[in-house]
Amino acid sequence: MSVEKKASLPKGFLASGTTCGIKASGKPDLALFVTDRDATAAGVFTTNRVCGAPVIVSKQRVPTTIARAVIINSGNSNAATGEPGIEDARAMTAALASQLRCDNESVSVCSTGVIGVPLPMGIILKGIPHGVVSLGASDQHFLNAATSMMTTDTFPKLTSVDVEISGGTVRVSGACKGAAMIAPNMATMLGVVMTDAQLTVEQCDSALRFGVDRTFNCISVDGHMSTSDTVLLLANGAAGGPLSEVDFAKVRVGIQQVCQHLATSIIRDAEGADHFITIDVSGLETRDQAYRMAKEIADSALVKTAVTGGDPNWGRIVSAAGYAHVDFDTAFVSLRINGTQVYLAGTPVSFDAAALSKQLKSKRDVHLELSVSGGPCSGKEAVRFWTSDLTQEYVRLNSEYTT
Amino acid sequence: MSVEKKASLPKGFLASGTTCGIKASGKPDLALFVTDRDATAAGVFTTNRVCGAPVIVSKQRVPTTIARAVIINSGNSNAATGEPGIEDARAMTAALASQLRCDNESVSVCSTGVIGVPLPMGIILKGIPHGVVSLGASDQHFLNAATSMMTTDTFPKLTSVDVEISGGTVRVSGACKGAAMIAPNMATMLGVVMTDAQLTVEQCDSALRFGVDRTFNCISVDGHMSTSDTVLLLANGAAGGPLSEVDFAKVRVGIQQVCQHLATSIIRDAEGADHFITIDVSGLETRDQAYRMAKEIADSALVKTAVTGGDPNWGRIVSAAGYAHVDFDTAFVSLRINGTQVYLAGTPVSFDAAALSKQLKSKRDVHLELSVSGGPCSGKEAVRFWTSDLTQEYVRLNSEYTT
Repeated sequence: MSVEKKASLPKGFLASGTTCGIKASGKPDLALFVTDRDATAAGVFTTNRVCGAPVIVSKQRVPTTIARAVIINSGNSNAATGEPGIEDARAMTAALASQLRCDNESVSVCSTGVIGVPLPMGIILKGIPHGVVSLGASDQHFLNAATSMMTTDTFPKLTSVDVEISGGTVRVSGACKGAAMIAPNMATMLGVVMTDAQLTVEQCDSALRFGVDRTFNCISVDGHMSTSDTVLLLANGAAGGPLSEVDFAKVRVGIQQVCQHLATSIIRDAEGADHFITIDVSGLETRDQAYRMAKEIADSALVKTAVTGGDPNWGRIVSAAGYAHVDFDTAFVSLRINGTQVYLAGTPVSFDAAALSKQLKSKRDVHLELSVSGGPCSGKEAVRFWTSDLTQEYVRLNSEYTT
Repeated sequence: MSVEKKASLPKGFLASGTTCGIKASGKPDLALFVTDRDATAAGVFTTNRVCGAPVIVSKQRVPTTIARAVIINSGNSNAATGEPGIEDARAMTAALASQLRCDNESVSVCSTGVIGVPLPMGIILKGIPHGVVSLGASDQHFLNAATSMMTTDTFPKLTSVDVEISGGTVRVSGACKGAAMIAPNMATMLGVVMTDAQLTVEQCDSALRFGVDRTFNCISVDGHMSTSDTVLLLANGAAGGPLSEVDFAKVRVGIQQVCQHLATSIIRDAEGADHFITIDVSGLETRDQAYRMAKEIADSALVKTAVTGGDPNWGRIVSAAGYAHVDFDTAFVSLRINGTQVYLAGTPVSFDAAALSKQLKSKRDVHLELSVSGGPCSGKEAVRFWTSDLTQEYVRLNSEYTT
């Protein structure tokens, strides 16, 4: 089992990436993911109370046993509020369903891009037949589809992994677009994961939630939750029949691997970021406690700017952990930065700060390892979280976009 | 009742601001606030699990009926962890108590400034007698004390307000230092509020909590909670006897006014900030819901950078409200920016974006008014919150301090 650099589609899946003309640049802006037979499907969506029409429509269509396609347009989000936005989203799925000769309910939909401008439905509906005739199963088709999802992403994000199970090999593949922010729209994170393993609806739902909880939900650029975040999983069973429990566990790991590759790609592509930060928090009673603590560290502007400046500032990291509303004894807190112990059992440790600072400045990858095990908090729960640093360039990009 | 530009101490209070020599610059670094008779006192402290030794010591001494003094040193925080830090904090209070001939337990203590360097106890203990002989009741003495609390503050923060009650006039006065961050220490917010009204311990505690909840707890520069935040209230009764309920209510308003003046001064002095942002959120069922929603908006890097860039970006503001874990119907959301309606009943409104953007760029003060009243959320609870914007200069100050 390994994550391939060359990403391929699972059996029975087709993809295309074409240009409708939504993007003024003429870059591809319509991505289709299609399965040649009914698939089970599940989705995980933004929990923002303010959510886009495509989220509302897609949420009604998964989990399902009759999934056939996902349609995604980039370049313009579906910004119409209320019924008009929902009608546009439904019209996109109906247009694709009529081409594919499947039920409207079998199609999920996502839109991403500039907000405040109505979706140009005319050119989208005209572009869909071209997208359908462009469908294919090659690596290039998959790459085209991933490329067509991009907004401010600087590179397409896709991956696939082959999983050996008792009956042979199944594949899990996925593509996503990133959480980078740009004028004047919000971050939108969209992901499509596909497998030719056969999963029940319950397995589809539980495997996706398990994977997303540990990957897409463990990344943060600036803590601002988008109104359109969507990750879908389709399982078409083209590579074999029902899975044993052991095999399902293996496929679930594959799904998590694909999600992790995609989610961390988003952080690697975060706007204006100089550092890719991996945060490991351990020693908690519950996963939720570890998650809250890791997220507070990841979202702290002071932690991020310390990393930007190459400062191994244990004080900012430990104090961010301190306001995560978790009961722990500071006498048991320990911290490593890029493998160097800087804080041990509640006390700063003498270390070569100049050398560590130099390394932080020259290396893109930063690893923060915080353990709080001891006293009231002697658990074994751990969480890994990924984030980026906060640079002047981030502020410039997010403040000067209108000028 | 009005907030005076010229700040004076209440009756029976003395203050001094002197130089021990902690700050290399030679600027004053020892502030004393003393009452000539026993006062009731209460305190509100950081809820960070990681907290400084002075917080641990002061927490044990309030609420009390025998408060006599507060000692604050700036320039160096009390960074020693465990027993040594606590011994230093206690030694500072003991040295002042012996000069004032009062109980050690009558003195509270705060330290703020650079961390990672042991507190220079020798020069502090030597400086305390000079601080005591410098005590006085004039406006200049009050200003000196406020000035001696400063770390990266660019101006001293103090105010006083006279409150008319049935028996005559009482005064509430206060000084604080700001939440600005600088290398390599955390933000520390310290405040001392004094009144010559007579308050029971219960009144002291409840009035301080009421005031702090609506002021110091409603400001945020970057959401990072310090390990030393402390606000103390001392009430010495020098201006009269027990208060009627009506008079207590008036004094409580005075205390809130003083706290608000001090808290907003901190935001006005936030490092590298171009804008002072007032956020009003209304229409919620509970104050806690309104608070969470206002805080999410205040802490959003995307909202802050939009303000920095002069962009009336309703999408970023409304979507930040959306992830505050409050159940509301987006069809009832309305937003004004500096008085201009930009979003009404869940729909963007047509407005002169260029004019509003120009105004945002030229004016320092920004007012965001969000109402979510309607549908599932038809309450009357509102919260006002203050924050600053996020500038390239903030990032520079917080990342380049080691170079």
